[in-house]
Amino acid sequence: MPALDTNSILAGNRRALAKAITLTESSLPAHREEAQTLLEALLPHTGKSIRIGISGVPGVGKSTFIESFGQLLLSAGHRLAVLAVDPSSPVAGGSIMGDKTRMEQLSLEENVFIRPTPSGGTLGGVAQKTRETMLLCEAAGYDVIIVETVGVGQSEFQVAGMVDFFMLLMLPGGGDELQGIKKGIVEIADALVINKSDGEGAGIAAATESQYQSAFGLLRSEAHWTPVVTRCSALEKTGLDEVWSIIKSYVTSTTESGFFAHQRATQNRQWMHQLVQSMLLRRLKESAAVTAELPKLESEVEAQRITPYTAARRVIDLLNSA
Amino acid sequence: MPALDTNSILAGNRRALAKAITLTESSLPAHREEAQTLLEALLPHTGKSIRIGISGVPGVGKSTFIESFGQLLLSAGHRLAVLAVDPSSPVAGGSIMGDKTRMEQLSLEENVFIRPTPSGGTLGGVAQKTRETMLLCEAAGYDVIIVETVGVGQSEFQVAGMVDFFMLLMLPGGGDELQGIKKGIVEIADALVINKSDGEGAGIAAATESQYQSAFGLLRSEAHWTPVVTRCSALEKTGLDEVWSIIKSYVTSTTESGFFAHQRATQNRQWMHQLVQSMLLRRLKESAAVTAELPKLESEVEAQRITPYTAARRVIDLLNSA
Repeated sequence: MPALDTNSILAGNRRALAKAITLTESSLPAHREEAQTLLEALLPHTGKSIRIGISGVPGVGKSTFIESFGQLLLSAGHRLAVLAVDPSSPVAGGSIMGDKTRMEQLSLEENVFIRPTPSGGTLGGVAQKTRETMLLCEAAGYDVIIVETVGVGQSEFQVAGMVDFFMLLMLPGGGDELQGIKKGIVEIADALVINKSDGEGAGIAAATESQYQSAFGLLRSEAHWTPVVTRCSALEKTGLDEVWSIIKSYVTSTTESGFFAHQRATQNRQWMHQLVQSMLLRRLKESAAVTAELPKLESEVEAQRITPYTAARRVIDLLNSA
Repeated sequence: MPALDTNSILAGNRRALAKAITLTESSLPAHREEAQTLLEALLPHTGKSIRIGISGVPGVGKSTFIESFGQLLLSAGHRLAVLAVDPSSPVAGGSIMGDKTRMEQLSLEENVFIRPTPSGGTLGGVAQKTRETMLLCEAAGYDVIIVETVGVGQSEFQVAGMVDFFMLLMLPGGGDELQGIKKGIVEIADALVINKSDGEGAGIAAATESQYQSAFGLLRSEAHWTPVVTRCSALEKTGLDEVWSIIKSYVTSTTESGFFAHQRATQNRQWMHQLVQSMLLRRLKESAAVTAELPKLESEVEAQRITPYTAARRVIDLLNSA
């Protein structure tokens, strides 16, 4: 891979950006070092975007929402990058965002950059690559970044920890469809957006909105922001202006209060500590002695034949003796 | 400290139990090893209890609740251990449970064993000691273990991860007092118990109950258990039978479905992995090279002058060079 030209990326060259992202996604140590050098050089040019996380169960209409919402952002003069964190996708590179039939219009736009979930690795690894991709897109001049994820595993928590504003798309109706939503997600959302508020769904969506509004009022209260419940139809392109207004008002008020910058600094520090932990844990996973013994130790701990402390000490001893 | 007699503990000797707990709480490596040998020997005699976690903001009436609820358990023939995880307490050993004016009646009972928060250390360390104390109490024949914590920091999550049944005590009234309750706690509770449903509070408590019931129905749904909302007055000793019935019915249904045993096995495995992580992280904290550099690295990361990856690599290099 040839040395990367930071100027091409800063000038918004899509090909240079795509190559830089591929470099950060590589697991080769030499690429890893080169990618870090590049990121360090670009770092002063990053951060000038609104980072929006979007989650919701399959079927809620995330891609239609992003398609319609993206058009609205474009017509307001923004440049949009759409990234995905979807560790549930089994196909490397061919994950949810890779399908060109999704976001058909959006993917043709000059001011839109769409990138599927990085392939391979753990959720932590995928999230790490997405964070770096976000920085590269910012350096390339994209001023709205959407990070999409599905309600699977811990990916929403990872995404919420890398964005400024986290919204949950929901279906009209009672609480039943919430069964697919993981515990704690509703509580970390800055907004609940009830999609498919159209046709026969419109009345149900209005009722759902007021139900969540009272539940939300009861369960959530924060100094920096009062979470908002609203509804829209991505299909009929209604209510999307309202969503964008909510996000803009969030950015304005949290920028004034200082929370916006504070949250970004905290996210950076936490990201660093997560990396330290994952580097330490990687040594465990790469230790042949540990991986050979671990299943046996785990089942003995589960069956309460040895204490967790004794098992943990053995793991550390195995690691140190290697 | 003399060698500990497992038989005295198994026979329910309070003095032997108290000495064993003190041994597990010691930070001396020799004591640590001795405590583990003792725990290994007692392990086959542990696990035969119902482990109940109780949390709630200060002022909700936790000690009065445990006092009244404990009397009910005693009259049903149970032996009760009350442990505390309260890392917010600044005074070593003199934490929330150490005050003898609290649970005045209960502390005089022969079949009750009350132990304050272990002193010192991180929340993880405190939780580790409480888990071990729980095992010792089970070996000594206590068949109901209550682990109490306050709504501060991450302690409720730690406690929820070590018990069979986690309940949140709440005040009657709207959502305002929830401001003191950390995000996500309501979502991990197996029951919300609205206390102080007496006098003028009774009507408000009933309204609060139905509010939470609808919010809960909307936000929570789990295969193994439908979280319950109920109310009581610890002062007037009403509604406590109902709480105990809920817990018994939880134990019965989750034992039948296999979830009870599954959750315990999972908790043991997670406990082991947490210990491995904390042992690895302890090396970081004990490294003079790392602690000298860390604040500078953190502020550079927060200010986005270096990438989190670069900072994390430096931390690992400092650790390895030591």
